[in-house]
Amino acid sequence: MKNKKATTNISEIGEFGLIQKLQKTIKKNNNLIIRGIGDDSAVIKSQKDQEILISTDILFEGIHFDTTYMSLSHIGYKSVVVNLSDIYAMNATPSQITISLGISNKYSVEDIDDLYEGINKAAENYKVNVAGGDTSGSYAGLVVNVTVIGFQNQKNIVYRDGAKRGDLIVVSGDLGSSFLGLKILQREKMVLSDHKIPKLAINEIENKLAEYKYLIQRQIKPEARAEIINYFKEKKIKPTSMIDISDGLSSDLNHICNSCGLGCQIIESKIPIHHQTKNASIDFNINHVSAALYGGEDYELLFTISPQQKPLIDSIEGLSIIGEMTDNKNERIMLSPAGKKISINEKGWNHF
Amino acid sequence: MKNKKATTNISEIGEFGLIQKLQKTIKKNNNLIIRGIGDDSAVIKSQKDQEILISTDILFEGIHFDTTYMSLSHIGYKSVVVNLSDIYAMNATPSQITISLGISNKYSVEDIDDLYEGINKAAENYKVNVAGGDTSGSYAGLVVNVTVIGFQNQKNIVYRDGAKRGDLIVVSGDLGSSFLGLKILQREKMVLSDHKIPKLAINEIENKLAEYKYLIQRQIKPEARAEIINYFKEKKIKPTSMIDISDGLSSDLNHICNSCGLGCQIIESKIPIHHQTKNASIDFNINHVSAALYGGEDYELLFTISPQQKPLIDSIEGLSIIGEMTDNKNERIMLSPAGKKISINEKGWNHF
Repeated sequence: MKNKKATTNISEIGEFGLIQKLQKTIKKNNNLIIRGIGDDSAVIKSQKDQEILISTDILFEGIHFDTTYMSLSHIGYKSVVVNLSDIYAMNATPSQITISLGISNKYSVEDIDDLYEGINKAAENYKVNVAGGDTSGSYAGLVVNVTVIGFQNQKNIVYRDGAKRGDLIVVSGDLGSSFLGLKILQREKMVLSDHKIPKLAINEIENKLAEYKYLIQRQIKPEARAEIINYFKEKKIKPTSMIDISDGLSSDLNHICNSCGLGCQIIESKIPIHHQTKNASIDFNINHVSAALYGGEDYELLFTISPQQKPLIDSIEGLSIIGEMTDNKNERIMLSPAGKKISINEKGWNHF
Repeated sequence: MKNKKATTNISEIGEFGLIQKLQKTIKKNNNLIIRGIGDDSAVIKSQKDQEILISTDILFEGIHFDTTYMSLSHIGYKSVVVNLSDIYAMNATPSQITISLGISNKYSVEDIDDLYEGINKAAENYKVNVAGGDTSGSYAGLVVNVTVIGFQNQKNIVYRDGAKRGDLIVVSGDLGSSFLGLKILQREKMVLSDHKIPKLAINEIENKLAEYKYLIQRQIKPEARAEIINYFKEKKIKPTSMIDISDGLSSDLNHICNSCGLGCQIIESKIPIHHQTKNASIDFNINHVSAALYGGEDYELLFTISPQQKPLIDSIEGLSIIGEMTDNKNERIMLSPAGKKISINEKGWNHF
């Protein structure tokens, strides 16, 4: 939230007024929309021979995000990106989103403008349209529900359950950085809560924490791995199974194992971990491998692929082969540098 | 909520456990789903030459529904139906829904089972699939976001903006009954709040209020007008504009006028109002025409149609021609039985 700006109570312009105002900020980022906001429903052009993918996420203030250390613009951006990530994880292309908002009376019209600035920025960056939405009052702070639809032809859709024994396990980017970013922000929240104008303190802290800028960016402004899906298309690569890492490598790898009825063996030293993540882990007395396994919110892609395609994977910077799928469905194992077998069980975020 | 049933805390089975449990209750109600819940996104079969319609609604406990006088099963049912209504209002057929839930800790696993009983019942009745969803904890009681996608070929989609001067204005069913049902339930809430076991009192009140059973049903278990859309298809009728009446006849008719740049003239005596609505209006000292104009939550269809199609409209029971579209875009008028012109302005529900 920016300071020294006029604040308009939402009741002054009403629900219809707010919708009309937001509608004006929305750009057309692709040509598949026939009719957007302003009718009973949006109308989207169907795509020849392309099936429709749909995913939805609901995010609550105080559970999924904290306005103390995240600007509303970042909250808007992230809410969209985490949903798009679910469509990329099917090897598909997101096309349209709808946004439902619950807004408590502490938020002004300008705050919702900020939120939509982030939503619109993400929509623009990923070339999706804000096709529709709903707004309501809320007793629970801010609530954001995003639904995304995307397209892909049936033969190229990648599910969680197609991995075969011996398939390589690959992850994009690095893991655990978003979790450490969160730990840093939570620590700095103490500073913020002591500050007379908490919103002003955000910049100060960001400067102070330049050392960990990457980690904070990963937490407050994550990106979805569109470029990997584009690369797959370009090189005609089709993973055998795929998921996005939202709950942590361990939990999401276990999802793949469960879906495929297989086990896995990954090599600890192969897990991609950023140097800032390693450094920050020392500050917090956290094992950085645990951060990668259980941290969550990475929004990297985790996929399996036939070993024949290893050269194509090796040729891309930013992809790491971390292990392989095995026959023994009850063994989900990580090999330590000392050669010790460590069981990696399902342990993800649980919002209840 | 039924009584004397075991209550299981959601934390006992966790978010994944809850999703798995709910997933088992979901039936396949049409064949357009390729992959449902259990992957990063659902996959829906596209329909040849059919565009995709998408609509979303977010509903909050304490704003859109009150668990004092609505069972969770009814809340689930209504949440789905009000969304489907938006797709029918485009002259299209709903096909798939996603359900996002925010659940505060006062709700048990059995409560969410009840909610899903209603969701599944609506899905079955309207032949749509629950294709996906998300669940989260909530600090705001129960929050339900429903997104629906439907299909229709481009030439048969009906928007709000196609009405021509002289087109007839038609509504389905009767208006104002849901609003009076709400008034009755709100009055009885006092009784409920004095009752030692409020949930037990619901049946008592329902019996006591048998006189107004229709009105209460309209409020707690509304239906969407699928049969009208089927009739249009069968008789090859295409309305020139259409909207569903969620905010009240006045507000929604003004939406059509605004979209078309036209005025309207309706005849008070032609507005279909149920005899129970008239009787209850006397109890509450409300003008029953005001209830029809401004009550809302009718989920009837309001559409305009070429006068040439009058015989086809007259031949259907449950459709009422209430007036016509006029050239003067600033005149939105209701003719009273005494021939007086009454201006009907935009006044709908406003949740802020």
